[in-house]
Amino acid sequence: MTNKKRGRLTLPSEANFYDETIEMIEKLGADALRDSDGTYLPEDIKDIEGVDIYTNFFPTRGHNDFAQTVPFEMSRFYLISDFVTAKGELTEIDFLRDYYKDQIRADYDYDPKEWWDVYDRTRGAKLDPSLWEVDKENNLVKIKTEPFHVYTVNFLAYGIWDPVQMYNHITNDWGDEVAHHIPFDVRYEKSSKFVEENLENWLKANPKTDVVRFTTFFYQFSLIFNKDGLEKYVDWFGYQNSVSPEAMIAFEKEYGYRLESEDFIDQGYYNSPYRIPSKEFLDYIDFQQRFVSQKAKRLVDLVHKYNKKAIMFLGDHWIGTEPYGKYFKDIGLDGVVGSVGDGATLRIIADIDVPFTEGRFLPYFFPDEFYEGNDPSIEAKDNWVKARRALLRSPLDRIGYGGYLSLAYKFPKFIDYITKVADEFREIYEISSKAKAYTSCKVAILNSWGSLRTWGAYVVAHGKKFKLAYAYAGMMEALTGMDMDVSFISFDDVRKGIDPSIDVIINAGDAYTSFSGGENFLDPEVVANIRKFVYEGGGLIGIGEPSAYLANGRFFQLADVFGLDMEKGYSQGYDRYFTKEIDSHFITEDLKSYDYGELKANIYALDEDTQILKYENDQVYLAAKDYGKGRSFYAMGLPYSLENTRLLKRAIHYVAHKEDDLKKYYADDLRLEVTAYPDLKKYCVINNSNDRVISTVYDGKGCGHEIELAGGELIYCED
Amino acid sequence: MTNKKRGRLTLPSEANFYDETIEMIEKLGADALRDSDGTYLPEDIKDIEGVDIYTNFFPTRGHNDFAQTVPFEMSRFYLISDFVTAKGELTEIDFLRDYYKDQIRADYDYDPKEWWDVYDRTRGAKLDPSLWEVDKENNLVKIKTEPFHVYTVNFLAYGIWDPVQMYNHITNDWGDEVAHHIPFDVRYEKSSKFVEENLENWLKANPKTDVVRFTTFFYQFSLIFNKDGLEKYVDWFGYQNSVSPEAMIAFEKEYGYRLESEDFIDQGYYNSPYRIPSKEFLDYIDFQQRFVSQKAKRLVDLVHKYNKKAIMFLGDHWIGTEPYGKYFKDIGLDGVVGSVGDGATLRIIADIDVPFTEGRFLPYFFPDEFYEGNDPSIEAKDNWVKARRALLRSPLDRIGYGGYLSLAYKFPKFIDYITKVADEFREIYEISSKAKAYTSCKVAILNSWGSLRTWGAYVVAHGKKFKLAYAYAGMMEALTGMDMDVSFISFDDVRKGIDPSIDVIINAGDAYTSFSGGENFLDPEVVANIRKFVYEGGGLIGIGEPSAYLANGRFFQLADVFGLDMEKGYSQGYDRYFTKEIDSHFITEDLKSYDYGELKANIYALDEDTQILKYENDQVYLAAKDYGKGRSFYAMGLPYSLENTRLLKRAIHYVAHKEDDLKKYYADDLRLEVTAYPDLKKYCVINNSNDRVISTVYDGKGCGHEIELAGGELIYCED
Repeated sequence: MTNKKRGRLTLPSEANFYDETIEMIEKLGADALRDSDGTYLPEDIKDIEGVDIYTNFFPTRGHNDFAQTVPFEMSRFYLISDFVTAKGELTEIDFLRDYYKDQIRADYDYDPKEWWDVYDRTRGAKLDPSLWEVDKENNLVKIKTEPFHVYTVNFLAYGIWDPVQMYNHITNDWGDEVAHHIPFDVRYEKSSKFVEENLENWLKANPKTDVVRFTTFFYQFSLIFNKDGLEKYVDWFGYQNSVSPEAMIAFEKEYGYRLESEDFIDQGYYNSPYRIPSKEFLDYIDFQQRFVSQKAKRLVDLVHKYNKKAIMFLGDHWIGTEPYGKYFKDIGLDGVVGSVGDGATLRIIADIDVPFTEGRFLPYFFPDEFYEGNDPSIEAKDNWVKARRALLRSPLDRIGYGGYLSLAYKFPKFIDYITKVADEFREIYEISSKAKAYTSCKVAILNSWGSLRTWGAYVVAHGKKFKLAYAYAGMMEALTGMDMDVSFISFDDVRKGIDPSIDVIINAGDAYTSFSGGENFLDPEVVANIRKFVYEGGGLIGIGEPSAYLANGRFFQLADVFGLDMEKGYSQGYDRYFTKEIDSHFITEDLKSYDYGELKANIYALDEDTQILKYENDQVYLAAKDYGKGRSFYAMGLPYSLENTRLLKRAIHYVAHKEDDLKKYYADDLRLEVTAYPDLKKYCVINNSNDRVISTVYDGKGCGHEIELAGGELIYCED
Repeated sequence: MTNKKRGRLTLPSEANFYDETIEMIEKLGADALRDSDGTYLPEDIKDIEGVDIYTNFFPTRGHNDFAQTVPFEMSRFYLISDFVTAKGELTEIDFLRDYYKDQIRADYDYDPKEWWDVYDRTRGAKLDPSLWEVDKENNLVKIKTEPFHVYTVNFLAYGIWDPVQMYNHITNDWGDEVAHHIPFDVRYEKSSKFVEENLENWLKANPKTDVVRFTTFFYQFSLIFNKDGLEKYVDWFGYQNSVSPEAMIAFEKEYGYRLESEDFIDQGYYNSPYRIPSKEFLDYIDFQQRFVSQKAKRLVDLVHKYNKKAIMFLGDHWIGTEPYGKYFKDIGLDGVVGSVGDGATLRIIADIDVPFTEGRFLPYFFPDEFYEGNDPSIEAKDNWVKARRALLRSPLDRIGYGGYLSLAYKFPKFIDYITKVADEFREIYEISSKAKAYTSCKVAILNSWGSLRTWGAYVVAHGKKFKLAYAYAGMMEALTGMDMDVSFISFDDVRKGIDPSIDVIINAGDAYTSFSGGENFLDPEVVANIRKFVYEGGGLIGIGEPSAYLANGRFFQLADVFGLDMEKGYSQGYDRYFTKEIDSHFITEDLKSYDYGELKANIYALDEDTQILKYENDQVYLAAKDYGKGRSFYAMGLPYSLENTRLLKRAIHYVAHKEDDLKKYYADDLRLEVTAYPDLKKYCVINNSNDRVISTVYDGKGCGHEIELAGGELIYCED
């Protein structure tokens, strides 16, 4: 894996494709081959010399012969029924109504009277179990109700079909031919024993495998389907499918209190990452992460015993293995592989502290992209350009592709493009693995999750855009490729005293979500520590509804620092005289039109000390303020774009009082970005656009040179 | 006052304008003359026969000879200082910093340690008085502070200059010539005695006055100026300037508990009408209304003793006299006069239960409208057309104008127009005073204030547009001229059981304001009663954020009735499949483009039962739903327009199941409106636009006739 033109690349292969595989290995310089969903590697492929063989392994699905013997050990969920309004004094709730019957089945093995709960959501109160009965035959809960109150049932259910296989099964219309994978739960004795024995047998039976790819370990993230077999609920961080009475009993023994159904149901929000996590949920996360890590370690140790490497796919059954969690390192993995859609999904992998990281690039070699008349190199290029800027800051050790190699083989232009990508990647790796990239400022993103959700903040489902997320995720995406040392800190980190090496804190999110922080801002310690940090010279950036919690005469609890608050109706009687935009400002020098994403209405400046950078429709969109020796900046939203990336970079320099450092390793044209490696006396200029760009580019001393780059080009310069 | 072409009209007059006044009386058919701000009626004018003489009387201002003898009895305020962030352990707050020194002076006559409070707004807690000292010489409060906590001072202040006179004084640059009116407080003994004695002397001295116009009684609504002499805070319903330790001591005696400064300061919100009123504030309102009514009655009785009529101007020192309050009738007034800017300001006067009501129409005869080259009849026409539709539903007894008659006299086109207005008004009065206008539905507007703020809901400052108000006030404005029987109900009215004669309840407002209702929707009785009302056949209309309170898994607590909720971030994991607009709907049949006013983001339909009438940018703007035998309708906002008026009318008919009644007394063209008087077998068609309109107009049996109206025209038809 050391030749500059070879290595660090995993390709998929398949049966009856030997010669072409050899050809592709040579052309692309691949050093590993993998199977894929729907493919397997035949023996002749496995025998190819000079390449490692990756093989998928599913510990808790795809073993129906075993699973059918332990129906009681199937995976479970706590689920909520529909919200049902009682029209009289007796109400029946068909709690399974909107669930997919092939996925979800009521669990009557545990006594519903003990494990289920009925809530009056009008009173916000749990009903005494004597007020309801379960009709198991008809899957109904019959409740003595107060008319026109709303009721829900929290019930325990079996997940009888693995959600990921189910998704593929339904999408690809596999019909009756392919059996439904039954998921089982290693909290239970037989399953626990089975996964280890089964892995050992498998390891013995697969001597040609060099790298075992766990996809993943035990608990699938939340993925629940509706009555029509369509996705009903998804949470990439959801612990919902990790729950079981067995776990709850073990939890109670350890923590001294019993979790209730509502601790998982959470009013139907299922502890969404946007919820400020409850103590109970945080305890449960810790408990499960510890359990999963210990159990996963036993599997990894087995793999090592057979002299193979163990890597983990980041996703699918990854609950409990969060790589930024406390116990991840204990697993002892050799590597992590994950899907790369953009900068943030790249860095969520690249920043993991593990021997090697590998990114699976887009597009998959699947017929949705690879069909006659389409040019899959377009998506590949878009994907590469987005990921590359992040890669320059935090390199992956390997890249790879997935799908049917035989399909991609028919698109020579595409193969040429990814050959170029592979070469460019290896070149980047050569440099960026040897030296730390230059950083101008240390930036900390503050939210309720802190480092646990490093680069995973704002995510609902991996790689998908959400209306309430993209204007914040864009800030994170901008940072993935910026010359900033980025960390993720929690409110507890703020309580303990803010790390003085931090230049700038960013608080971004909608009011009352975990990402803005909600009630944390009612804690005097939190707000006083942040104020002190800024007053003494730190920078604070707020996006959306930072520090928002309606209390004590303010909506933004840090209104004094931002010089802004949001009118919620109560203070309309106050005249607002501070509405004039500043003529020009360092932060907005390159801004032509501001794309704020989603409107946060009625933000106003408190007084003349607020520098209003953008004012329209009687509200503030962008503002800055001096606060003691420090500074703040506010933006309504930062959807990802080249222009917003520049806006954020300028804002960080401004609030960090590092305006003078802006034009070091910097390009005037915002389509270009510069990453420098001072130890190597080199810097790299990338063109993030498809346009040919001529721009002044500045070296580390701030000396400008005119440089011309073709669309998408990357060049290296001596510093 | 009985001649059809004469009467029901008050004109201003002034000195040195005798002959022209006679000419104007004749031309316009006036039967009353009044003085105005800045004018007085000389004796010759007062002697004109056949007209009543109105004279302004100010009980508690404009009597400086007295006021100067009782400085301790000046009017008072509880005021809040700036929000000041402590930077160290000792913080000085210059609590008067942003107040106008000619209006506000600290009251040190009452011991600050007893009557003032210092709050830590970071802890949300009052400080022990031992932690602060007042430096009276420098008007500072010195506080032992926790660094980086925010502090405010609640202080008692004298209002040393009447705010209304001050406003006129500053605006008209009266300089040193005109003395500052010192306001005094009738809670105190000498002032209390003075107002009565003074009035009696005045009555004796003004034998030619027929009608005493109180402007108004004792307590000015909140009107506070900043350090630059500009308006700082205004609340047309504000009780802030009615406060005094004397009142608080009396309150404590009666109610058994002591009010604190914070009961008035209210985190700096000063009990804005948008706040859900506290028990303490409601008690205080009741207490002051009772006191003011009793005291005002004594003045009115005096007026009657001298055989004059007593009327009240609705505004200025009107606190405690709210005409829809419990004690208003006790005052025994003969009439109420108020300013008319539109339908709502007309009906706030016209609907008062008092012997006569009089509306002062726009424009004032002031130089801002009456200058060379301007056509003041344009504003007059706009004002008249807006008011007229309301007048047809609820007639005033009189109309009038204010300002300098000598100025208007120079604009003959204007005089011609208001002559026409006066004639049209008398014609309307003839009919509408004899018979009740036809109503198709009974509509109740539900908010925290109920009937107390009849037609005054959503008002911050009288006649002004506010960003967070207009999209709700527009709904009310639309109703002012609609064939609906409108009432204003409170949550207590809902708790007691909803009046079964109501067809439709409207709940409109931003979340957590008094107008949407906030925490009232956590009361099971409230939501259950509304649900029952709709389920059994009632209609519910929600505008903006109806029933909003984030709790129990919902933001809209009546989500089930509206079929909608608002995504606040926590439930993004749920897939939203219900996004399809209905092809056509009764409610939106006349709607071309929907003006919603201010965005309420991320509203989604709960399920397929919701009829989506308008969907854009991944959110719902308009929707309807069947709920049992009843129906609901949701609109994001309803700024006043002819199109939104039609939308609301259709929505009311729809949710009331009275679609078949729509085309009774109705015009197809939405620029026309019809008001019918079935008892008189007449209906009146008005053109609310400046366009010539030809439209089918329907009589009470639903028979259509084509009718043509000139711009602004009004015609009567036989039914």
